Amino acid sequence: MRGSCLSNSDFSGTYSILPDLPAVGGNEGVAQVLEVGSRVTSLKTGDWVIPRDTGLGTWRTEAVLAEDDVISLPNDIPLLSAATLGVNPCTAFRMLSDFEHLKPGDTVIQNAANSGVGQAVIQIAAARGVNTINVIRDRSEFTQLSDRLKAIGATHVIKEEALRRPEMKELFKTCPKPKLALNGVGGKSATELLRHLQIGGSMVTYGGMAKQPVTVPVSALIFKDVKVRGFWVTQWKRDHSNDERAFRAMLDELCSLIQQGKLTAPACSEVGLKDYNKALEVAMTPFTSAKQVLIM
Amino acid sequence: MRGSCLSNSDFSGTYSILPDLPAVGGNEGVAQVLEVGSRVTSLKTGDWVIPRDTGLGTWRTEAVLAEDDVISLPNDIPLLSAATLGVNPCTAFRMLSDFEHLKPGDTVIQNAANSGVGQAVIQIAAARGVNTINVIRDRSEFTQLSDRLKAIGATHVIKEEALRRPEMKELFKTCPKPKLALNGVGGKSATELLRHLQIGGSMVTYGGMAKQPVTVPVSALIFKDVKVRGFWVTQWKRDHSNDERAFRAMLDELCSLIQQGKLTAPACSEVGLKDYNKALEVAMTPFTSAKQVLIM
Repeated sequence: MRGSCLSNSDFSGTYSILPDLPAVGGNEGVAQVLEVGSRVTSLKTGDWVIPRDTGLGTWRTEAVLAEDDVISLPNDIPLLSAATLGVNPCTAFRMLSDFEHLKPGDTVIQNAANSGVGQAVIQIAAARGVNTINVIRDRSEFTQLSDRLKAIGATHVIKEEALRRPEMKELFKTCPKPKLALNGVGGKSATELLRHLQIGGSMVTYGGMAKQPVTVPVSALIFKDVKVRGFWVTQWKRDHSNDERAFRAMLDELCSLIQQGKLTAPACSEVGLKDYNKALEVAMTPFTSAKQVLIM
Repeated sequence: MRGSCLSNSDFSGTYSILPDLPAVGGNEGVAQVLEVGSRVTSLKTGDWVIPRDTGLGTWRTEAVLAEDDVISLPNDIPLLSAATLGVNPCTAFRMLSDFEHLKPGDTVIQNAANSGVGQAVIQIAAARGVNTINVIRDRSEFTQLSDRLKAIGATHVIKEEALRRPEMKELFKTCPKPKLALNGVGGKSATELLRHLQIGGSMVTYGGMAKQPVTVPVSALIFKDVKVRGFWVTQWKRDHSNDERAFRAMLDELCSLIQQGKLTAPACSEVGLKDYNKALEVAMTPFTSAKQVLIM
């Protein structure tokens, strides 16, 4: 491995795929191929590769793997972008592609806009000319964070409270109502996103940070025809494991955005493998602001 | 008009299309064509017709209407079937057709199974070889009602409490888990239906009798990939107003089921027009068991 992430999905009990203990840890990371077997055709020495599925075990320096366990990336992208590509940007890409047909000028609204997924959503949407309304919780450094998200392409950044205020009408003079809402929080926050959707729009839930269910008014379903869906990138990868083209096409497009400087890695802390204890501690702290990446 | 319904959608404040007062009442009913204009091609004297859209004003003996305001039915079906065809059976038909691909042997679960929509669901599903699990609230005449629903084709009839009990496991030895859940209630009842859906199944909400929102666990959306949708037959008719074929095909299929004795009208009380006051009073009583139909 070259760089391996300590990710939410490695620890979070709200995710259903925690392996039984004792277990091999690590779902995300980038490795370099040191040697290939005589029957391997899709990879060569020096290639960068990422896991095809969750649970590969990326917290290690070396591994002997089957050709199908990995998929290659161009090796001229930043190491941190490669190490963090397989989960959050893929989640953002699929949610922006598979639920509503978004054209330039359309709008997406999302909560948890500062998350890894949220930042990828902002950048991929911006590259496609799609407006984003980005909802974050109020905090002391709100202005700084808002500026940072705008610098990577956010159209609007608002506090959660604003969703319930009449000012939203002003905002919708500058962009159409969203066709798509992306929900990483649940609870009230999700209901508030729903309220602003266009008739016939979709809300896609990929996380439940608030540990509360998604509550949908009956009238929104019947009279506004909103569609309430979920997305789990691990399942998507499994559903497409026999058809490499879809995964390949997604990675090609994401890597092209990275090469053009339009998609950057989320804030990361690079940590030497010997300091894994420290990295684990930080990674398990709630609301940690930087992704811990073990560099090998 | 020959027969005109006093329907929930005429009174219920939870439905968003109540017209401003003073208003012409009556959304449902069957009329007979007495005379046609010289440029009318799709209708002839003697035809039975029903409204194409909500709000036609069916509480009257006679009307002069545009050709496009109505759609014809065969006039050899029972009057009460014709008078009650346009809303509940159409809602049931579309929900069974447009959200999941149901094959013979598949299962649908529904609450409010004794409602007009519920009874149509049972019969249309039975005609297609699709199992139904029908949830009703406990009541003194539970056994009678259960027997009646089974007589029209219900596979299983259960009380709402049973949804939370381990007996459900036994039930699922006799039929597969449902691909589709139909929700006319909302609140806890909807959440309980969701819990029994197959992975990737859909819940469609068409009513909210409990006046509570639909609450969806985040894990059901992300890891079970359930799809939460709504359906409103008025909107469907409007969306298809420029393409008669879909409406025609649905009515043909429903009338064919009626002619074969596979789809019966819900319990109705026939009331003379002069007794409209009495009929209105009964129709506005909550949980009234028979649909009031004005006979003209």
